[in-house]
Amino acid sequence: MGFEEKTMKSERIYEGKIVNLRIDTVELPGKKYSKREIVEHPGAVGIVPITEDGKIILVRQFRKAVEKPLLEIPAGKIEINEEPKETALRELFEETGFYSNKMEYIIEFYTSPGFSNEKVYLFLATELEKREAEPNDDELIEIEMYDIKDLVEMVNRGEINDSKTIIGILLAEKYIK
Amino acid sequence: MGFEEKTMKSERIYEGKIVNLRIDTVELPGKKYSKREIVEHPGAVGIVPITEDGKIILVRQFRKAVEKPLLEIPAGKIEINEEPKETALRELFEETGFYSNKMEYIIEFYTSPGFSNEKVYLFLATELEKREAEPNDDELIEIEMYDIKDLVEMVNRGEINDSKTIIGILLAEKYIK
Repeated sequence: MGFEEKTMKSERIYEGKIVNLRIDTVELPGKKYSKREIVEHPGAVGIVPITEDGKIILVRQFRKAVEKPLLEIPAGKIEINEEPKETALRELFEETGFYSNKMEYIIEFYTSPGFSNEKVYLFLATELEKREAEPNDDELIEIEMYDIKDLVEMVNRGEINDSKTIIGILLAEKYIK
Repeated sequence: MGFEEKTMKSERIYEGKIVNLRIDTVELPGKKYSKREIVEHPGAVGIVPITEDGKIILVRQFRKAVEKPLLEIPAGKIEINEEPKETALRELFEETGFYSNKMEYIIEFYTSPGFSNEKVYLFLATELEKREAEPNDDELIEIEMYDIKDLVEMVNRGEINDSKTIIGILLAEKYIK
């Protein structure tokens, strides 16, 4: 598709710790114009950690944006100068205390391309090794372990409500079987 | 988990057409404080439309936030006073020209709960009926039809990069088989 939205004007509204907000005025065919509200995000990783005996390690944490705790795969924001794989190794360890000797990239996707450029790089972590955890002061996280078949049922029953976690579970099912 | 993040202060930064931005100051255990950047979104629907002969209807459109066209399931923002199912029927028709006589809710999920409350309600649309489309002036959309097994392979090869679309494809696979 040759069509593109040319930026005629770009207004920066906010520059934050995790997101920035800008409003672009774009040109559409026929010399029409529209506004696009865009949330800039540095990108993130999600990790599906699988133990020797085939359990998936998930984390439960309070999410202020939705005002409740959610069960998710370990995940985190990519820091400056970090490769996604380094982020994945760091976040897995920070959140669970596990180091992975085999961190494999699976796929990448935009979480909400209608208004944000946030991209999540998804990894499968195996050959896990428990080390002393160094929890992040700013996050209170509980670890839970599940069989993959129970997680797939939880997805089908609507009990997993985070997009990257649903994707991670549905794709991991194929690796574990 | 009993833990919650109590809001000590809430600052509204921006109120837009699709998103709002606010910064909450939250209290953590031990009388510590942190900031949470939160993108408010009214919620959206995604629809997996399946034709009589088992094809999935997808749409390709330019996404300004990521500066490229993406292949996605039909989707759209929930308008004021609209039930998700009404949104699903409306958006499917607006984007593809198909009316569904059987619009079934599957699951719902947050696209990016680390910074946004956007929730997507996912539907499966069958018993489709082609009507005269009324394209939205503000969107330029191309329709494409695929076999579900080709789409699953495209997901595995990393060729589908939108979270709701990946979830829709992986869940639809179970319905079609």
